[in-house]
Parts: sequence; structure tokens; C-alpha cells
Amino acid sequence: MSEKIYVYSFEEGKGLGKELLGGKGSNLAEMVSLGLPIPAGFTITTETCDIYYKNNKTYPVEVDQQVEAHLQALETKMGKKLGDANDPLLVSVRSGAAASLPGMMDTVLNLGLNDESVIGLATKTGNERFARDSYRRFIQMFGDVVMEVPHHDFEIALQSVKDKKGVKLDTELETADLQEVVQLYKAVVQKATGKLFPNNPREQLKMAIDAVFNSRNNERAIIYRRINDIKGLLGTAVNVQSMVFGNMGNTSGTGVCFSRNPSTGENKFYGEFLMNAQGEDVVAGIRTPAEINTLSEVMPDCYNQLVDIYHKLEQHYHDMQDMEFTIQEGKLFMLQTRNGKRTAAAAVKIAVDMLGEGLIDEKTAVLRVQPSQLDSLLHKQIDNQAKKAAELLTKGLPASPGAAVWQIVFKAEDAHEWNENGKKVVLVRVETSPEDIQGMVAAQGILTARGGMTSHAAVVARGMGKCCVAGAGELLIDEKAKTLTVKGKTLHEGEYITLDGSTGEVFAGSLAVVDPELSGDFETLMKLADKYRKLWVRTNADTPTDAATAKRFGAEGIGLCRTEHMFFAEERILAMREMILSENEEGRRKALAKILPYQKGDFYQLMKTLEGLPVTIRFLDPPLHEFLPTEDKDIQALSTEMGVSVETLKAKIASLHEFNPMLGHRGCRLVITYPEIAEMQTEAVISAACELKKEGVDAHPEIMIPLVGFKSEFDFNAAIVRKVAQETMDKYGVQIEYKLGTMIEVPRGALTADEIAETAEFFSFGTNDLTQMGLGFSRDDAGKFIKEYVEKNIFEKDPFQSIDETGVGQLVKIAVEKGQKSRPDISLGICGEHGGDPASIDFCHRVGLKYVSCSPYRVPIARLAAAHAALNNG
Amino acid sequence: MSEKIYVYSFEEGKGLGKELLGGKGSNLAEMVSLGLPIPAGFTITTETCDIYYKNNKTYPVEVDQQVEAHLQALETKMGKKLGDANDPLLVSVRSGAAASLPGMMDTVLNLGLNDESVIGLATKTGNERFARDSYRRFIQMFGDVVMEVPHHDFEIALQSVKDKKGVKLDTELETADLQEVVQLYKAVVQKATGKLFPNNPREQLKMAIDAVFNSRNNERAIIYRRINDIKGLLGTAVNVQSMVFGNMGNTSGTGVCFSRNPSTGENKFYGEFLMNAQGEDVVAGIRTPAEINTLSEVMPDCYNQLVDIYHKLEQHYHDMQDMEFTIQEGKLFMLQTRNGKRTAAAAVKIAVDMLGEGLIDEKTAVLRVQPSQLDSLLHKQIDNQAKKAAELLTKGLPASPGAAVWQIVFKAEDAHEWNENGKKVVLVRVETSPEDIQGMVAAQGILTARGGMTSHAAVVARGMGKCCVAGAGELLIDEKAKTLTVKGKTLHEGEYITLDGSTGEVFAGSLAVVDPELSGDFETLMKLADKYRKLWVRTNADTPTDAATAKRFGAEGIGLCRTEHMFFAEERILAMREMILSENEEGRRKALAKILPYQKGDFYQLMKTLEGLPVTIRFLDPPLHEFLPTEDKDIQALSTEMGVSVETLKAKIASLHEFNPMLGHRGCRLVITYPEIAEMQTEAVISAACELKKEGVDAHPEIMIPLVGFKSEFDFNAAIVRKVAQETMDKYGVQIEYKLGTMIEVPRGALTADEIAETAEFFSFGTNDLTQMGLGFSRDDAGKFIKEYVEKNIFEKDPFQSIDETGVGQLVKIAVEKGQKSRPDISLGICGEHGGDPASIDFCHRVGLKYVSCSPYRVPIARLAAAHAALNNG
Repeated sequence: MSEKIYVYSFEEGKGLGKELLGGKGSNLAEMVSLGLPIPAGFTITTETCDIYYKNNKTYPVEVDQQVEAHLQALETKMGKKLGDANDPLLVSVRSGAAASLPGMMDTVLNLGLNDESVIGLATKTGNERFARDSYRRFIQMFGDVVMEVPHHDFEIALQSVKDKKGVKLDTELETADLQEVVQLYKAVVQKATGKLFPNNPREQLKMAIDAVFNSRNNERAIIYRRINDIKGLLGTAVNVQSMVFGNMGNTSGTGVCFSRNPSTGENKFYGEFLMNAQGEDVVAGIRTPAEINTLSEVMPDCYNQLVDIYHKLEQHYHDMQDMEFTIQEGKLFMLQTRNGKRTAAAAVKIAVDMLGEGLIDEKTAVLRVQPSQLDSLLHKQIDNQAKKAAELLTKGLPASPGAAVWQIVFKAEDAHEWNENGKKVVLVRVETSPEDIQGMVAAQGILTARGGMTSHAAVVARGMGKCCVAGAGELLIDEKAKTLTVKGKTLHEGEYITLDGSTGEVFAGSLAVVDPELSGDFETLMKLADKYRKLWVRTNADTPTDAATAKRFGAEGIGLCRTEHMFFAEERILAMREMILSENEEGRRKALAKILPYQKGDFYQLMKTLEGLPVTIRFLDPPLHEFLPTEDKDIQALSTEMGVSVETLKAKIASLHEFNPMLGHRGCRLVITYPEIAEMQTEAVISAACELKKEGVDAHPEIMIPLVGFKSEFDFNAAIVRKVAQETMDKYGVQIEYKLGTMIEVPRGALTADEIAETAEFFSFGTNDLTQMGLGFSRDDAGKFIKEYVEKNIFEKDPFQSIDETGVGQLVKIAVEKGQKSRPDISLGICGEHGGDPASIDFCHRVGLKYVSCSPYRVPIARLAAAHAALNNG
Repeated sequence: MSEKIYVYSFEEGKGLGKELLGGKGSNLAEMVSLGLPIPAGFTITTETCDIYYKNNKTYPVEVDQQVEAHLQALETKMGKKLGDANDPLLVSVRSGAAASLPGMMDTVLNLGLNDESVIGLATKTGNERFARDSYRRFIQMFGDVVMEVPHHDFEIALQSVKDKKGVKLDTELETADLQEVVQLYKAVVQKATGKLFPNNPREQLKMAIDAVFNSRNNERAIIYRRINDIKGLLGTAVNVQSMVFGNMGNTSGTGVCFSRNPSTGENKFYGEFLMNAQGEDVVAGIRTPAEINTLSEVMPDCYNQLVDIYHKLEQHYHDMQDMEFTIQEGKLFMLQTRNGKRTAAAAVKIAVDMLGEGLIDEKTAVLRVQPSQLDSLLHKQIDNQAKKAAELLTKGLPASPGAAVWQIVFKAEDAHEWNENGKKVVLVRVETSPEDIQGMVAAQGILTARGGMTSHAAVVARGMGKCCVAGAGELLIDEKAKTLTVKGKTLHEGEYITLDGSTGEVFAGSLAVVDPELSGDFETLMKLADKYRKLWVRTNADTPTDAATAKRFGAEGIGLCRTEHMFFAEERILAMREMILSENEEGRRKALAKILPYQKGDFYQLMKTLEGLPVTIRFLDPPLHEFLPTEDKDIQALSTEMGVSVETLKAKIASLHEFNPMLGHRGCRLVITYPEIAEMQTEAVISAACELKKEGVDAHPEIMIPLVGFKSEFDFNAAIVRKVAQETMDKYGVQIEYKLGTMIEVPRGALTADEIAETAEFFSFGTNDLTQMGLGFSRDDAGKFIKEYVEKNIFEKDPFQSIDETGVGQLVKIAVEKGQKSRPDISLGICGEHGGDPASIDFCHRVGLKYVSCSPYRVPIARLAAAHAALNNG
């Protein structure tokens, strides 16, 4: 029986994979196998860590023996010895699990320094100050992460020396001072731990290895794994690697480089370097690094070698590489390579370029661009330079992306009026309501003090592709005085403001913005996504304009047309109010007859725009009180307009008041009280379709009944729709293929989907409301405490942004299974805000939905996310 | 192969059962088998009906043949012939399914009458007018139910004759007029159906039989079966029975009698009769019937025979009988017997008496009393006579039973003040809120214009055993003027009103009430119920008084103590408000420290009262804004009291405003923001228990975390409770056995019960909120449209009164299964209002809960319902 191997040198690691060696160890082994110049070292396997935990934090003596053997081999190879007083071998010790595990112990550098070897380092680098500083940093780092000495204690000691010397910066300390700091640090360690700081480098190494293993189960790491749902990891590997130095004179240096431009994606070597410097000098920004191409002049051999290497690495990893290198006395060492982070534009270009170069295949190209990244490509952006110089007023939620830079107004009617006068405005409200729709249409951007990511303002703004920052809680808005105040600064009506809807930032004044540009590469990528996705992508659109935008972005139908938004236009709202205020059915019918031609016209335009693609029309959903005014002034005006006394109006408004409108008299419940509403809406939909058909335009309306919890509710509504639809078709002498289905947005609706599917032809999951009711979170109120939930790790993620798979997802799953049991060919889709969220789209794919529907500007995101879902789930 | 039997004479029917013969046919056959005098006849089986439907509404010719054979046998037996001009046989045709099926065709009387036999009837009864009237009634009845002629057409014809004659009442028509009506009726039939009215009695019979079969599937019957969940009935049987007449002179008569007093339960023959009369004369109330015992003087033989019969029937059916009889020319016929309806008091007495008499066994005695009936035994009742004479003002929901007859006040503080001055009042509010608690305590009854069966007013009133009528929507309440107006009538403060909380009736003025009396029989019955039930019964109680009441009624612990009700007393609310208005944790802790001794005192008293029985304490549940005043005057007062400006107060109140407080910042969510609240409550509970234990009193607190939807929410709360509980026990040096569990009231909580049960030791289903969220119905708002739902058959029953098994029940079932999977010994109970509803208790038994908890006055109901559940589910 051969001895079990716990430790592999980098040379031995090729192909053993990151499960055994961790990501970092595996990467280093790969680079060695490519023949690249890597500082030598070895990796202790993740299995060892697993054994460590399974054996009460001990490991077999063979591990120590193998580490010692590899260490000796390393010493031999490097011609240096750990702790040597002349030319010491120094090593770094790093953790590295199969998946990235932030929160774990990361790095101990310069291990091997002690009172003797520090002199060797000084001699070798010719820089005593550097050596002494390295030593005191090592003690601090080791003390902190390995020996768990409070970081603060070291700070106090360091400060005492600076105070004594009368200096402010660490860099002002001289060699002697640093020697004093080292002494103080050792005392700190002894006081905190009751132990001497280990002078023996081999003891240092063993302690560091154990510390890496222990940190796998520290609190931060556990929380991180929980949040990111990382399970079943064996443990972490430990990498021990010899140190190299870029600050050993003018033939040494260090740098960071990318195989392509991470900002634009251009296929051109990119990066920067500093001669005679360590990595931390680049980060600190004290000296300005040089562009990478100038290295070809300074050290042409190294440069050429580097170019060779980056090509090799791209070929090997089939992706753009982000690399770190150090040149020690003219010799190039690669310290790290990894797939580089990039902007959205770069991601698209690199994916399409690499596909063209034959470096990756289509599926890989599609998977190379994160769907959520696309968002920034589709909207105007604040110029980054301008932002850096600007004054940040406050921050709200990034409710709808893009930038808006305009004058502020505080009332919807002002927005409308200013807009009529040719001025562009940002509408600032405490919160918006459907009454504000006209103003929101007129405004270029919307800023609210209250409400979350799925508040009225957020949802409507996203639908319009309009920039919105919601729930900026620090804002004090005085609607009467028409001012907003934040942190003591007050802005008046007409002053300029800049919103960044992608970050939630709000700036005073007007900042420069840059336009989005959709490249041909973007189109190419989208076409590839379409090729691989299984889910259809529809859009949530209430107007022909929105619908046309969405179609341009590739929408394959309308998944949600909210008809109530059509009731708010000036000439319609009056008829709507007349209906609400009617005392009897006759009065309501009279008022509805006035609305009918408008609705019919809306549907006609919408279905004409969609040219035969399915158009899902949701019948009236909100409670009626949303259509009535709330402010005295408006009530007064309505009273005059309608010839109804203010008292009567107020009484009616009071009688319609609801404690929890979310759970009140709305959706299909309205029709049970007022069947004539559904009659009018059905007539509008079907006659519009009939007229189009007569004109030779195909129309496929899908009538959707909202808020169904009982089959009997659906059936009551459905009977009206079927009757009126047939009458209307008879009238026109035309047959329309329409579908009749329901939203599944009430938990009971999901739980009784088998019953409902007996008569409903399709389900569209309204996951906004399903989340609200399933979790008991009012989206308009939860904003106040949801932050706390995220901070205290109660939520893994905001369930209004990404579908809560365990809870709400379970309801969706139940409904899918039960619905398909009753009606195997039932059409299943989602039209909640989750329809535009990549993680939720992945869920929709897995659970077997047929389509997702999202706001027009998220259609490309959904298309790509759907492709990812198809590719990732095999 | 013997011929299939479709028709059985009553003599042949014994033991064939109601599945085959229907309830009515089976009953008649039983009576015949007992040797009772029954008008002869036969039954066509339910199977025939089934065949009829399975064969496209036809049946084999054998059915006709068997009917004809039985008819001929009947003619022979009775010595009369159908349609005979001298002494005709007349029959009734009645439907009768295995279960009662209202909405189906019920009865055709006097079938066999035609232009000839009507003369025979006249001769035989010596009453031509009666004969002619019977004939015209027969045509109308037959025309209506068999030939589907609109009822209205007959009315018009009848009216035309009355007009011509110049009379108003049917009784004013003479023989000749009635003959004219018969002619007109025949014309009506011909016009409506295009057919002549069938003169042939055998044709009449066949048509009537088919009509009974057809009526099984008429709309009313289908709806009724759906609502009452009656499935799988074969069909209806048809009973053909010879007619007897009680109006054939002074040796004839008719009556209704009961084997025991249905009002008191006294074991004494009870009933009334009329000589020379038909059943309809008794019903019409034109003549006053005589008491049944006087029949012993008029016709002693018949009387003695009747007494014999009722004893025989009681012995046979083992239950109190409700019988109809007719005496035709000195000969007694039994027309019907059935188990008699009875009052609650009678039900209890009869059950216990019959058990004593050995007529029934214990289980039967328990099942003989409907749990819901008990309600009326436990509360004061309005005197029935007084009610008949009184003026009904309006009707609301019967929110909490009993009667309240007192002066009205319109504000909680007025109720309090009047009460202090020794006056008893009814508190009238648009709706109540926790602020009104003091006033509700002071009031004798509560009347609200808004809110449903589980509105704040209803829940609190039931908890207090206090009469409440809620949601009386017709009331216009003017709090300023202190008046209520309904249907033009206005009552002012101080005027008397009478509420019937058992019916929802509201009367002007003061009506007489009668006290409840709990008999020894009641106790006997309760003990029997306890013997057979499997569910424990706890109570929802917040005060020692409520708890003591409930214990007297047999409660076995507290299933829900709502701690927030303890915060509203005068000296506490101030500290509570101080906490809410605090800017930081320190301020909150200071305020909470003031509340601590009160809470501790409350829990001490409560646990002392319960003497070792479990006491489930729910931690703070409502949103904080419920503790702040809403009216300007109160805000002003608070501002003065607390030394905080009105503006600051208003700003804070505004900042706490929620759109949907039901789905807002409350329950365990409060603790995630303000952990110190749970710390205070834990300290109060555990230190009270420790002090009791030191005094030798056993205390078993069960701490219940409300509104948990995520395991992480529970764990966050639980960590605080466990820590503080341990610290408190350490302080006292006492070990308390406490449990820590959660409400399951959020759908997600139910769906993830497996996760939650990993750390929660018990679940208590809060089915009020589970219904609100699961169905998306705000209980405070649904009152407005739920009526419509019931009327339009959308609901089978109000889901707030009786648990919605299909939807909410499914969530409960999921949670029970998942909870038990994670923790097999998990304690499971229910503390929603459903805990006192018999149908819901049956569900709780079936789904495997361990206990139900209900308001004190429903404890006996729950005990009996639990026994029913155990007995009915085997």
C-alpha cells in the first residue's frame, strides 16, 4: 500500500484539479506545467483539511513529514534556507479552496523572517529599512491572522513610536524606529497570547498552516458559505511559495496586466508596471506606474517573455487573463493569473472576438457575458470622471437604471406643465401613486423618498425604461414649499439634480452623461442567446411605444399589459371616477360606455404593434380608491367637475378606504361586485381584435384575470368574458383565437392550481404579489426594515429582487405541477418583476415555465439569462 | 336470472336502507314494518334514477311495468281507483334522496284529480268547494313543477277571476269561481307548453315521476350539492303514496307532535292538532290548534294509539321524534316521522336523559348535541317575546354572542368615564383599535360599523365574552356629534340600544333579557365529551380574569396570551410610547425597563392562575404605530405629557405609517430591529416563573415568536430568548422548564416548516393571519365584499369563520408533515379564531394537532367539538 500523498509540489499538481488543490494551487500547477516562470512551492491538499476536521483538528504525522520533505526540496531548489542569516528563503502561505471563500485567512507574506534572517534580507536587498519594515509587517500580519492578537493592539504600539518621534506617516519612520516597533510588537504578542512570538521559521510555518485550516470554519467564512449556498467543500488547500522581490534595484519591478483591454474589450495587451517596487507600491499610488508597452523599452526581454506568456495563458484558459508579475533582478516571475474582470462592453466584445478567433465555442461565448451586466449597456450613464468630481447628495435604491440630469419639480402636474413648456424635469415625490402617471410620463427621471425596488415608482419607471432612484430615505421633501432637504442642503424647484439609476446615487447639480451604444457584437451575442434559450421572452408593456421598444429589443409578445394604467389619462379618469361614484349599475354602465372606445383604441394599437404575437391583457387590478383624489384641492376640483358635493365625495372616498389595500377589494374581486367592468373590458379587447382581423392583421389576445385564489372566482369572471367575447365576435362575424387564463399571485391560487387549471387556459405567475402574500411583506413598507434583514443575514437576498426559491418558489412549483396535472398543455409564464432577474429566470427555466415577461429594457437581459439557464442546466 | 326490481311497496322496503329507497321511502317502510298505520304506497328506487341518467333520460320498460303493477296493487288494497268518478284514489308523489336535497322537486299532492274524479272527491268529502280548490291547486302545482309553466302565469289567471268578482282573498272565491279558475289554468298550461293538461291520471303519474328524476339535476340542486359537498349520490327515489284527508268531518283531523318537549327537552308528549282540517290549515294559522293532550278527550282511542306509536318510534329511532299525523274518519294515519329539531337546552337534556334511560350510549349522547348550539347556553339572551315586539334598527355580523342592553357612548374614554360613574354602556365605534381597549373593557357591549368576524372588535369582544355586533354597515356614526343614524333614525349618546350578538340584530330601546343557566346535565355532557376527545383544549386569554373564566369552563392551559394587550393600560402606554419615540437603543432600554415590572406582574398572575398548566405567551406582535395616537387632540396631549413637540410627534407617526400594516413591520420583525424588546419580554416571563417556583408554584411558560416566515428570523429571536432566559434563571438560581416555539401564520412559515422545526419546539397555527395571507383577504376590509362572495356562491363558507381546508388547510397540512419530519415530537396547536369553530376543530383533529385554543366562552364548545371529531373520525 503506497503512502497517501498530502502534499504536492507545483510541478506535480498538473491536472489534479481544484477540488484537491484548491483554485490557487491548481492554477499555479497549471502555469508551471505550461513552462512559465513561477516561484517554486507546494500545496497541501484540501483532503488534508478535511481530515483535520474529522480528527478533532489533528492530522497524521505523515503530513508534517511530507511538508518537511517538500520544504527541504524547496530550499535545495532555491539554494536558500528558511531562517538563514545571509540569504534566507522567505515564503508566502496562502489558503485556496475549490471555490472562492472570502472571509477566510488569506495570506501571510515573508514567512521565515526572524531576528537573524531579517539581516540576511537587508543584505540581499541592500535596503535595511525595507527588511526591518518587512519584519514588523510580518509580525503584525502573523500575529493578527495566525495568533489572533487584536489588530488594534499593534496600532497602539506603532502610534506610540510615531508620537515619540513626532511623525504622522509610517513612511517617516526610520530603520531604528522600525527596530523599536519590532520589539514592541513582540511584547504585544506576548501580552495578548501569553506566548513568545515564534522565532523558529519551521514553527512559524506549522502555525500558519494550522491557522489556514482553522479559518475555514471561522464565522465570516461560515456566513459567506451560507449566503452563497456553497456546500460540500472538502476544505481549503494551503499553498507555500517562495517569495520574490520586485524592489531589488533597477532590474527589478512589478506589474499588473491584462491580455485584452478590460474596459473596451479591444484585443490589445494592457496593463502597467513600476520598476524597483513591490506590489503594494502599485496599489498605494505613491508613484505613477508606466504603461505596459513601455516595458518593451526598459526590459525588452522580459516584455517579450510576458507577451508570450499572456498568449499562452489565453490559449490555455480560453479567456482574457488578469495577471500579476514580478521581475527580480532581470528575471520574470508570474505570481498569479486569473480570468479578468471586465466591463459589460468588454465582455460582449471579448466573447464575440474569441468566438471569431476560434478560441471558444458558441455556448461558451454566451456564458461569458453575465446577463445583469447588459443593463449598463442599455441606458445613458453618468460620465465616470464627472462623478468623481461631483457632490454626492444621498443614496437611494437603484430602482431603474440610467442617468437623469434635469430640473426638479415636486408635483405630477408640474412635471406635466413644465414638459409642455419644453422643459425636462426630474419628478421628486415622497412616493408615487397611479395618480402621478401623467407626471411620470412627462418626467425624465423619478426620485422618491419611500418605497423599495418594486414600489410603484420603481415598477413604472422600469417599465418606461426611465431612470429612477427610489426610497432615498434621507430626503426631507416639502411638497408645499417645493423643496428637498438632505444633510442640511436644500434644493428648490427648478434646480438641477443628477440621478444614477444604476447605483442609486443622487448628485446635486448637472453632471455629464454618456450615451449607450449597442454594437454589432451585441446583436451577434443576442442571436446566439436566442439560439440556445428554451424560454420565450415577453415584455410587460402598457403602451404601443413601450411595446415597440420591447419588440426592438427582441420581445416575443406582451406578457403583461396593465389595463389600469390606461385609465389615468385626463379624459378617461373622469369617466372612471364617474363609474366609481355611481350609485347603481345603470350609472356604472353609462360611465363604462365612455371608457370603452378608449380601451378599444388602446388594445387596437397594442395588438397592431405586436402583429400577431400574443398580447396578454390583465383586467382591472387595483382597488377603486386608487382612482380617486386624496388631496382636498383635488377633491374640490372633482366636486366641481362632477357636480357632486365635496361631502359626498369625501364620504365615498372614506367608504372606499382600506386598511390593507394589498389584501382588499381589487382584481377579480371587483368583477364579482361589478360584473359590468369585465364586460366592458372584454368587449374592448375582442372588438379591437375583430377590427384588426378584418383589416388583415392577426391578433392573439390573452385575457388574464388577476388575483384569483378560488376556482369559483375565476369561473365567475370567465363566464362573463366568454359570453361577451362570443357576442362581440358574432357582432363582427369574425372568429378570434383568444386565450383566457389567470395570474397566480395569491398563495391559495397556487395551492389550488389543479382546480383552477380545469377552466383556466394559462397561468402567469405574479411573483410580486405572491412574494408579498407568501412572505407577508408589503413591498411598500418592507423597505424600512429589509435593509436590517440583509445586514443581519436574515435574508440571503432581497426576495423582491430575486425570487425566494425555498418559499415562493415552492408555491410556483406546486402550481406548475398541479396545473399541468389538470391541463397538460397549460401555458405557463411569469410576469412579476422577477421575470427580468437572471437568477429568477434560471429558476423559471428549471421549474418548467414556457416564458418570462419583463420590462422592455430588460428584454435583452432576459434573453441572455434564459440562454444561460438552458446551458447551465443541461 | 330473476328480474331486476325497480319498485318496492312500503311493506317490502324494510331494511333496504335509504341508499336504495331514499330517506323518505326508507322511513315509511320502517314505520310500516313497525306495524304503524301508514297510507299505502310504493317507492321507485334511487337506482332507477341513476339508470335514467346513464341512459339519456330513459329507463327500461320494466320500470313502467312494475309501477303499473304496484299501482294496481295499491288500487286493490285501497278499494279505490285512480281517476274514478265516484271514490277516486288520489296519491302524492314525492322525491326522496339518501341525503336531504333541498332545491329538488318536492311534492305533487292530489295526483289523480281530473274533470271526473274531482266530482268523486266532492261527493266523498261532502265539500265541493274543497274538491274544486284541490283540483285548481293540483293543476297549478303540477303545471309548475312537472310541466314547468311559469308560476306567474297562474297568478295572473287567478287574479283576473278575483278582479272580476271584486274580491281580494283566494278564500273569498266560491265553487263556481274555482271552476272558472280551473278552466283558465288549463288554458295557461296549453298556452305555455302547447300541450293539453293531462286528464289521464296514469299519464299524470308518469310525468310526475320523470319530473322528479329530472329535478335531480336542476340548477338549484346542483349548487346545493356543491355547497354541501354531497357527492356520489345515486339519485333520488320517488314515493307514490295514497292520500288521506283530515277534513272529512268531525271524526277527522290533523296534527304535529313531538315525543319530548323540543324547547326544554322535558320527557313529556308535546304537540298540537286541529279537527276537521288539513295540514295546511295548521300552518296557515287561521284556526288555533289545540294542545295534543286534549286529543285524549276528543278521540281517546286515537290519542292512546298515538302515544303508543311515539314510544315505539323513540325506541326504534333512539331519538326524539317529530311526527305528522292525520285522522281520517276516526282512523289514525302517520304521515311522517323524523328526528326532531330542538333547542340547545333540550338537546342537552334529551341526550343525558336518554343515556340515563338506556336508550342511547355515551358516544351517541355526545354526538346528539351540536357544539355550536352550546353558544346560546353560555350567554345572556334577548327574551324572544320582547324581540318580536321590538323595532329592528339594523343587522350586522354576529361577532360575539350574548345580549347587551345599555346606553350608547361613542368614545372609549367616555365608556371608561361613564363606567366609573356607575353607568353601563354599549360602545359604538366605526371600528375599534387597540387604543380603545380600556373603553372596551368598560363597555358591556360593542357595536361597530366596519370590520368582519375577526376584526379587532370581534376578536377582543369574544375574548372577553362580551357581546359584539360588528360591521353593521348601514350605521352612519358621527363621533363628533355623538350620534348614530340608520334608515333616517338618529340615536344620541345616552339613548338605549339592544344588541343581539348571536344574530347580529340591533334594536332601538331596551329589551328584556334572560340569563343563561348551566344545568347539571350540561356538566354531565361535558364530562362525557372529555372522555372521548383526543385534542386538548386551551384558551386565548390575556388577563388572569379571562384565564380563570376559561379554567372554570375546562381550559387546560393558555394557548395564546397576546402580550400587547398588556401595553395599553394607562400607566404602561406612556412608557411604550416613550420607547417608540426614542432615538436610540439606550432610550428604548430605559423605557422598556419601566414596562418590565408590569409585564412580569402580568405573567406572574397569569401563571399563578394556571397552576402549572402550560401558558403560551406570544411576544409583541402589532406594528408600533398602533401604540401611537392618531387624533390631533391625543397627539397634543401626548406632546405635553412627553415634552416632545407636536411636529416631532407627527413626523414620527407619519414615518411609522404603513400602507399595509398587516404585511408590515411587526411580530418577530420588530425584534430584528429592536432586540431589546424581546430581551425585556423574556426577562419578564422567566423571572415571573422563577419567583413562582420559589414560592412552590409550578410554572410552564411557552414563549411564542410571532410572524415567522424564515428560520433565520426565528433563530435570531430564539438566540435572544435563550440567552436572557439562561441569565435570568442563573440570577434566581432556579431552573424553569420553558418551551420556545413559533406561530405558523405566514404562508412561507408553513412551506418551510421543516427548516423552522429544526430549532422551534412547538408550532401554533395562527390561522387568522394564515387565512389573510394565504387567501389575500384583509379581514378588516373583506367584510365589504365577502357578503357578495357568499351570495354568489364564490365561497362555500366564510373562511374566517371556518377554516378553508382546501387552501389554508393545505398549508397547515404541509407544515404539520414537514414539522414532524424534522422534529417528530413537535407540539402542534392552533390559536387562531378557528380554534373555537367546530368544523375547524374537526380538521385540527384529522390533521393531527395536539391542541386547539379558543376564547374562554368557546372552551365548552371546543371540548364538545373535539369529542365529535374523535368520534366521527373513528
